[in-house]
This record gives sequence, C-alpha cells and structure tokens, in this order.
Amino acid sequence: MADILSGKEVAQALGERLKEEVEQLKSRGITPGLAIVIVGDRSDSMSYIKGAQKRCGELGIDCRLVQLPENISEKEFISQIHQLNEDKSVHGILVMRPLPTSISEDRVKYEISPLKDVDCFNPVNIAKVMSGDEKGFDPCTPSAVIEILDHYGIDLTGKRAVIVGRSMVVGRPLAMMMLRRNATVTICHTKTVDLAKETSRAEILVAAAGKAKMIKKDMVASGAVVIDVGINFDENGKLCGDVDFDAVKEVAGKITPVPGGVGVVTSTVLAKHVIKACKMQTES
Amino acid sequence: MADILSGKEVAQALGERLKEEVEQLKSRGITPGLAIVIVGDRSDSMSYIKGAQKRCGELGIDCRLVQLPENISEKEFISQIHQLNEDKSVHGILVMRPLPTSISEDRVKYEISPLKDVDCFNPVNIAKVMSGDEKGFDPCTPSAVIEILDHYGIDLTGKRAVIVGRSMVVGRPLAMMMLRRNATVTICHTKTVDLAKETSRAEILVAAAGKAKMIKKDMVASGAVVIDVGINFDENGKLCGDVDFDAVKEVAGKITPVPGGVGVVTSTVLAKHVIKACKMQTES
Repeated sequence: MADILSGKEVAQALGERLKEEVEQLKSRGITPGLAIVIVGDRSDSMSYIKGAQKRCGELGIDCRLVQLPENISEKEFISQIHQLNEDKSVHGILVMRPLPTSISEDRVKYEISPLKDVDCFNPVNIAKVMSGDEKGFDPCTPSAVIEILDHYGIDLTGKRAVIVGRSMVVGRPLAMMMLRRNATVTICHTKTVDLAKETSRAEILVAAAGKAKMIKKDMVASGAVVIDVGINFDENGKLCGDVDFDAVKEVAGKITPVPGGVGVVTSTVLAKHVIKACKMQTES
Repeated sequence: MADILSGKEVAQALGERLKEEVEQLKSRGITPGLAIVIVGDRSDSMSYIKGAQKRCGELGIDCRLVQLPENISEKEFISQIHQLNEDKSVHGILVMRPLPTSISEDRVKYEISPLKDVDCFNPVNIAKVMSGDEKGFDPCTPSAVIEILDHYGIDLTGKRAVIVGRSMVVGRPLAMMMLRRNATVTICHTKTVDLAKETSRAEILVAAAGKAKMIKKDMVASGAVVIDVGINFDENGKLCGDVDFDAVKEVAGKITPVPGGVGVVTSTVLAKHVIKACKMQTES
C-alpha cells in the first residue's frame, strides 16, 4: 500500500516558510502584491481565484482582482496590463486563461512584464524554463509537482521519470524542469504506441493527460512514485485524477491523491512566485 | 549492414527546392539576404562561416559578413544588431557564438529581431520551439536532423525516439521538435544511470552528447535509425561523431556518417530559414 503524498502537508510547510519571508519584507515596509486579471466571469476560473485570494490573505500577500468586461477590446486589455506593469504595489500578475477569442493570447502574452509574470505566460519565461534559467518563473502547476517531490525528499537525479501529457501548461515545462534536476525524462502522449510499456518503466510517473482514471494498476511499476496532475470528474460526477487511485495505490510506493494532491499546492506556489517577484523588484 | 543516410543527398535535394524559391523571389525583385555577425575571428567559427557563405552563394542568397572587433563594447554590439534589424536588405541575422565575455549573451539575445533570428537566439523563438509554433525559427542543427528524417521518409509518429544530450543547441529543442511530430521522446544525459538500456529501446536514436564514439554497438537495437550530431576528433586526430560508426553500422537499420551526415545539411537549413524570413518580411 502506497504512502500518500499529501498536498495539504506540502502547502502547509511551504506556507510557513513563505510567511516568514513576507514578514521580513513587511519589516522593510514592503507588502508583496498580486493582481489577478480575469476577463468575464467563467465559473471555473472564479473558484481558482477564490482559492488564490484566500491563500494570499493567509500568507500576508495583497491580492487584487482586476475583473474586466467580456467585451473589452484587445487594445484596452493591453493598456490594463501595461498599467499593472507600471504599478509599484503590484509585484505579480496572473492572467486567467483562456481569454475571450476577441483577445489574441499570442499577441498579449508579450505585453506582461517578464518580471511580474508569475505563471509563465510571457515567452521570455517559457524560454527560461527550457534553458533552466532559475531567474524566471516556472508555471505554477508543474512547480507544484516539484514542490511535492522536494518536500518528501524524492531526489530526481538519474531517475527514470515518465510524463503522460505534452501540454504547454504541464507536460512540456515539467519535462524541462525534471531534466534540470537530472532525471532521465520520457514524454508520452495520445500518439504513444504502447503507453503501458512506457509508464511501467517509470520510477517517477506523472499523469497529466486530462483523462479520468486512465492510469491503471497494470501500468505502474511496483514501488513507483505516482504524481497525479489530473482534475476530472468520474462517471458519478465525483472529482478524480488521471490515475485510478484506489487500484494504483496497491502497487505504487508513493502517490498523490485527487483531491488533496497537486491541486492544493498550486495556490501556495503562486504565492511563492509573487514573493520571489517582489524580492527581485525591491532588492537592488 | 545499415543504409547510409547521406547528408549530402539531403542538402542537394533541399537545395534544389530552395533555388526555385529564390528564383520566385528574384522574379519579384527580391534577393534574400543574410548577415553573419562575428566578434573577433575564432577559427572554428570562420570555417562554419565559409561553408555558409558558399552555400548561400550557390542558392542565390546574399550573404554579408559583419566582422566586429574583439574589443567592441556591448552597447556598440547592440547598436550593430539594431542596424541590421532595420536594414531592409537583410532578412536573416546569424550571430556566431560564443561571444566574448565582455558581451552578455543573456542580454543581447533579446535585441535581435525575432523575425530575422534564423538560428533561434532570441527567447521568443526558443519559446516557439517549445510550444510547437512553426512561425518561429528552430535552431539549425536540430532542424537538419528533422530534414534528414523527412527526406528519407522516416515518420516519427508513435516512434520511440531517444536523444542523448540535453544542450540548448541540440538536445532540448530537438526533443520538442520530435514531440511536435508525435514521437515518444526520451532525453538522456550524463546523469542517466543505465544509458545502454535507454538507447537500446530507441527506434530512432540521436547522439548529441559531444563525446567521441560513445555510442557502441551493444547500445543500439537491431534496425534502429541512428542520427549522429557529434563533431569530435578521435585519438588519431580524425573527424568522428558520437557514434562508433564502423561497429554500429553492423546493427543499425539506417545511420548518418560523420563527416557527411548532419553537419553538411546545417548550412542548407540556414539558407532555408533565410528564405522563410525573407518571405515573411516581404509578403503582406
């Protein structure tokens, strides 16, 4: 029976460290500030935002919601981003995606200051993820995976890591981040011919395919570390991951649950990035 | 005995297509132009430059060498780059690296126009490699690998591709490019624990580690496609790749030689990128 890698425990331990950092900043008269930009009011985004606001509040970070009308022009949207780039009380900017089709993500992503881009929207930061330049900001979800591995002392050096999923928000950046930590990394996806053969080789298996319970017991090596990034609903409308948790926990060595795994760490990682941005902008 | 994948043949076939494209541009009064920027006169760079100049000449591309003094300041270097960005007769800019230590690559890489950045120096293009956005420019060496596979009709979809080496000029971008073509990609490196076990699984094996003849016969599966990106000198001072060619060709299905493999395709790929840049800048 696998050990449970608890996202809650990771978020708590990381939160304690972040609180101290915020206190140090406040003793210098500085309060880290995050602006969350949302266009319209997609309900899934709003629940993420509420979680982020709550977490920032707990950690002493100012969190401002910039809610823009659904029909805003691209030009006006960019102007709002530029105002936040200039605003000295805002150290981090998170743009909720997807944006409405009237705004081209491909154009506006260049407008957010790379120094305030706490969730890796600007290509400058994407390039830094690829080159392993730690002065940039990695995207929050794959960073949460790394936080969990670090918290539980799981060293990646020389390990066979297999990632299922090649998205720009998880799979690809996580591959680069695991490479930076010296794992031998394999990226699988929908076109992989024998997925079970690949996943069975993993010492560390990350499921980030977005398909409910697709990782079955016979796809996991005995003792493997299994990290589940999926957020899906099963046939009964119950929240579940990409991993068939109840079965896989019988063979895995360590496993993250859903809920209570990667997802609950993400907002604390966002706060960590805001504090990092704040320090970079206020230390000279 | 493996079939030889001839870089010369690939360069020739690609060159024929490019010549036609240049003729079409010239019929519209446009001559594609490349500026190669070199600081000082490193002899290894100069031999690459001579090859590129010759190839551009053959294909009808203007190739200008901008040779800057070793002691040029970073500010003056950037000013030279900006002049080339503005110059309408220059469609592609290649900055030879490494630059002298007085010039920070980390700063100047942002200055080259992404539209003229034919060898993927600017992070904007690095991010496009990662996201699979084909409007950017991939780096020339991994592009040459893809050209060879394409020329010989080697489909990557669902294939197990193993890359040895994780550099920013070959391994990492090539991993992203092979992923774009639906391969299942594994990236190995010096910290990989059992390298032979990984390479033996490859249907397509790319050696880009920079270590003479390190890929031995017992590390390669029977029938595998082996692409050798290495450029080294062996114990007798003879040019060789990362693959122990004479032995590996006994087991591989297809293999690139060194010399005469990837290296001879690179300058033609550079020309291809200049023509692509020229078209993007002159079509509206």
